[in-house]
Amino acid sequence: MASERDLYQPPQEGLRARLYEIIFEASTPAGKAFDIALLIAILVSVLAVLLESVASLRAQYLGLFHLLEWVVTLLFTIEYALRIYCVGQPKHYIFSFLGIIDLLAILPTYLSLFLPGTQYLLVIRVLRLLRLFRIFKLVRYVQESQVLGTALYASRRKITVFILGVLSVVVIIGALMYLIEGPEHGYTSIPTSMYWAIVTLTTVGYGDISPETPLGKALACALMILGYGIIAVPTGIVTVELAQASRHAEALRCPHCGRGGHESAADYCKYCGGGLSGED
Amino acid sequence: MASERDLYQPPQEGLRARLYEIIFEASTPAGKAFDIALLIAILVSVLAVLLESVASLRAQYLGLFHLLEWVVTLLFTIEYALRIYCVGQPKHYIFSFLGIIDLLAILPTYLSLFLPGTQYLLVIRVLRLLRLFRIFKLVRYVQESQVLGTALYASRRKITVFILGVLSVVVIIGALMYLIEGPEHGYTSIPTSMYWAIVTLTTVGYGDISPETPLGKALACALMILGYGIIAVPTGIVTVELAQASRHAEALRCPHCGRGGHESAADYCKYCGGGLSGED
Amino acid sequence: MASERDLYQPPQEGLRARLYEIIFEASTPAGKAFDIALLIAILVSVLAVLLESVASLRAQYLGLFHLLEWVVTLLFTIEYALRIYCVGQPKHYIFSFLGIIDLLAILPTYLSLFLPGTQYLLVIRVLRLLRLFRIFKLVRYVQESQVLGTALYASRRKITVFILGVLSVVVIIGALMYLIEGPEHGYTSIPTSMYWAIVTLTTVGYGDISPETPLGKALACALMILGYGIIAVPTGIVTVELAQASRHAEALRCPHCGRGGHESAADYCKYCGGGLSGED
Amino acid sequence: MASERDLYQPPQEGLRARLYEIIFEASTPAGKAFDIALLIAILVSVLAVLLESVASLRAQYLGLFHLLEWVVTLLFTIEYALRIYCVGQPKHYIFSFLGIIDLLAILPTYLSLFLPGTQYLLVIRVLRLLRLFRIFKLVRYVQESQVLGTALYASRRKITVFILGVLSVVVIIGALMYLIEGPEHGYTSIPTSMYWAIVTLTTVGYGDISPETPLGKALACALMILGYGIIAVPTGIVTVELAQASRHAEALRCPHCGRGGHESAADYCKYCGGGLSGED
Repeated sequence: MASERDLYQPPQEGLRARLYEIIFEASTPAGKAFDIALLIAILVSVLAVLLESVASLRAQYLGLFHLLEWVVTLLFTIEYALRIYCVGQPKHYIFSFLGIIDLLAILPTYLSLFLPGTQYLLVIRVLRLLRLFRIFKLVRYVQESQVLGTALYASRRKITVFILGVLSVVVIIGALMYLIEGPEHGYTSIPTSMYWAIVTLTTVGYGDISPETPLGKALACALMILGYGIIAVPTGIVTVELAQASRHAEALRCPHCGRGGHESAADYCKYCGGGLSGED
Repeated sequence: MASERDLYQPPQEGLRARLYEIIFEASTPAGKAFDIALLIAILVSVLAVLLESVASLRAQYLGLFHLLEWVVTLLFTIEYALRIYCVGQPKHYIFSFLGIIDLLAILPTYLSLFLPGTQYLLVIRVLRLLRLFRIFKLVRYVQESQVLGTALYASRRKITVFILGVLSVVVIIGALMYLIEGPEHGYTSIPTSMYWAIVTLTTVGYGDISPETPLGKALACALMILGYGIIAVPTGIVTVELAQASRHAEALRCPHCGRGGHESAADYCKYCGGGLSGED
Repeated sequence: MASERDLYQPPQEGLRARLYEIIFEASTPAGKAFDIALLIAILVSVLAVLLESVASLRAQYLGLFHLLEWVVTLLFTIEYALRIYCVGQPKHYIFSFLGIIDLLAILPTYLSLFLPGTQYLLVIRVLRLLRLFRIFKLVRYVQESQVLGTALYASRRKITVFILGVLSVVVIIGALMYLIEGPEHGYTSIPTSMYWAIVTLTTVGYGDISPETPLGKALACALMILGYGIIAVPTGIVTVELAQASRHAEALRCPHCGRGGHESAADYCKYCGGGLSGED
Repeated sequence: MASERDLYQPPQEGLRARLYEIIFEASTPAGKAFDIALLIAILVSVLAVLLESVASLRAQYLGLFHLLEWVVTLLFTIEYALRIYCVGQPKHYIFSFLGIIDLLAILPTYLSLFLPGTQYLLVIRVLRLLRLFRIFKLVRYVQESQVLGTALYASRRKITVFILGVLSVVVIIGALMYLIEGPEHGYTSIPTSMYWAIVTLTTVGYGDISPETPLGKALACALMILGYGIIAVPTGIVTVELAQASRHAEALRCPHCGRGGHESAADYCKYCGGGLSGED
């Protein structure tokens, strides 16, 4: 796992080097303080967007919300500029996943000057928490999400086959229900019937549309029992892959001391400190 | 796994052989172009059927939808005739699974001349995508669906026992709720009560019918907790079978070089190329 | 697995022995014909009960339904009398599980002479299908249900702990929602709130009662995410037990020839025919 | 597992020792009688709280409910005082988990003298059943819940990552639906939209709010299929951890006689009686 440090090639000395240490790393007191301030700013600004959408609160505190939004946006803009300034290769940062999120976190406020309503897109700031996830060295959590990610990645083909199969069932059942129930019972078109089929197959069951003819109810019952049965399939897929990912992680052995039981994402042996990849 | 090629006995030379290569195979540029054209035609025609069912779009673009439907149907009819013409044994093709789907994909348009409404059955064209699935040599996806298929086939008896059990519960609970709640609370007959029981047991819960008497609510609670518990059963069944199918695939060893780890659907060893079945 | 034969001690000769062979066994042509007639009688009579409950059909065919009900009931009564007559130890049969179901299958018709409505209890006849299950020697299906049964039995304590935990959550959340939402939003009492909590926790979600205050919605969200998480628990329990039951069945070895891979419910080795329990 | 006995340091002799034996232990006839009386008092008092909340019953039996509540509360208060009196170190008891529950079980009645409505908080008495759980020496049930607890504890990080991921999806989808559907279709604010997103993602689906625009329905379909897929993740996590906890329990071997197959919570070998931890 290459660290963020290597990706952006930090400058070796001077103001830029000190700024880099504060903004991108968390090993110095100043860096930690910066991260905590960032965490608070993100949470406050997302909360402000959520609460601003409540009509009664908007009527009362509109000025406060706007002030907060602009203060946080300006702070994030300054932070974004500093990040570009202090990394060795700005391009790498700007087009990295986290760099794009940093940009998307400030754009909507400026856009809202021209297009009203876009300020609600600011909730994308919640994705900035991903940055803290990495910076705070929440290593074990990152490892756990890697095990989950590995299992989901390994099951991608089985899950694709499964979803294509589900969608074919949805198209065919949707067309049948449109013919059986018809627009007078709420099945106004095949796409609407497909929406109903997905609502039923996933066992959500809003009840905004529901079958009313005996034949429609019988077909719905068949679809529900089918849905009940096939919910077992993705569960089975993910469980088997998770079990294999766990076994693989357990079987990992240190090439130096020979001891096993390391986390699958560990780079170094937890007993002797030697590199687990054998390239150290 | 016998290939489609062997099933239909392609002609060895002449126009039929060239047509066969284009229509049934994807190894030549012409064959690939044909497959892509087929993919687009299928998606466009299914989309047209879906959108035609939307009242506002039908009012506006009725002519366009009809034109599209007839153009695609004529193309598919020509394709169907050519397929019959160029295979060595037309009977094998006509009564094969894919051959029947090819026929069903063109019939509803002709039927709609006599029976209005049948054009919505054209969504069956979505099944024609199965053909592309095979032709495009999406080998790994086919393998994955075989692992899923093997696991589901191996669990067929357990699942049958399970569904028979569920249906018995549904009949008995349905009759009890009909007696307890009665027609005045929406449980107008035992079949309707059974529909409600299935809606509840599968956790869909439309809410079009729901218990209103205290005793009915108590019975519904018991049924819901039961449904919550027994949803674990099919999941457990499929997971165990999937784990076994995966283990079996991993344990498969080449009789020539002795190496394992082959896909369960592989015919040849990926290391030495020898036949895995040992019959090569 | 002791057979039904041993339980009821069939008479050795005479009319009773011949009747026993026809009614309790399926190895002779007459026995098979009896079983098929029984299957048809059960399905027809259950179907008649279901359809009689539909108001429009009852109005039209009331006479036919009553005739059918009485014909089937008389046939079942004669069958019940014959069963008692031909078994060696009538008490064993009368108080056996299947014997009680046979009695319950005829009682409601006679009761309906005094208590109207009880004829709907006739759906209990659906349980008579269990008898056919055994008689038809659907051995593999019985074995599969035994594997399921073993797994569920082995998980009974974990599932009990789980359900007690769920019920405690339901009582406490139900009381909280009653305080938060109150009767004016449909939460008319704590038992009603508990009904809502079960509907929510099991992800059924009828929508007949749903939270309307912000605090109630927040608590409902917490409950839903909790329910989403804990649905994993029974699934995990059953899967682990099913995997162990499967492994156990695979590990079973014949004491005579030493070969394994027998069904967990097999009494004899499928390779050499020797008794698997080693007591043969 | 340290026993409750060691925690509270029971007095060695005198009245306090005899009281301790009756109240905290269940090995003498008096102790067992006390436990059964406690069980009945808890169930009766919780049932009284539940039924008192039903308007029709409250109107009719208000006096009876109040009498019951005060009688049980006084009994529990005396019991609480005696418990403090007879343990060696009252502080240990008062601040233990069970001690706090014992206090919470009597407080609401006294509070209801000043704050009406608080008597419904008495349902917390249901937690007092935990005490019986331990006292009744339901050892195997405690062991089973420890296996469940171990599995859930081992999966805490994977589940945290999973829930954080789900919440991020909920915030972003909630904001999008607020923009797409708007207040006129019931999505009155982003928090309300988030409530809808959780109702949908967990497949509860009340139907109190449901998408009405085509774009909203399409997004809802994507969310439902996503929810259908990710319900597999916690299930997979818990199953794998449960399987490991089970394997671990099976692998546990006695250091004295070497035999395995002990329950994970066993302190002593069930064959030779030696301490399993090897410290005995």
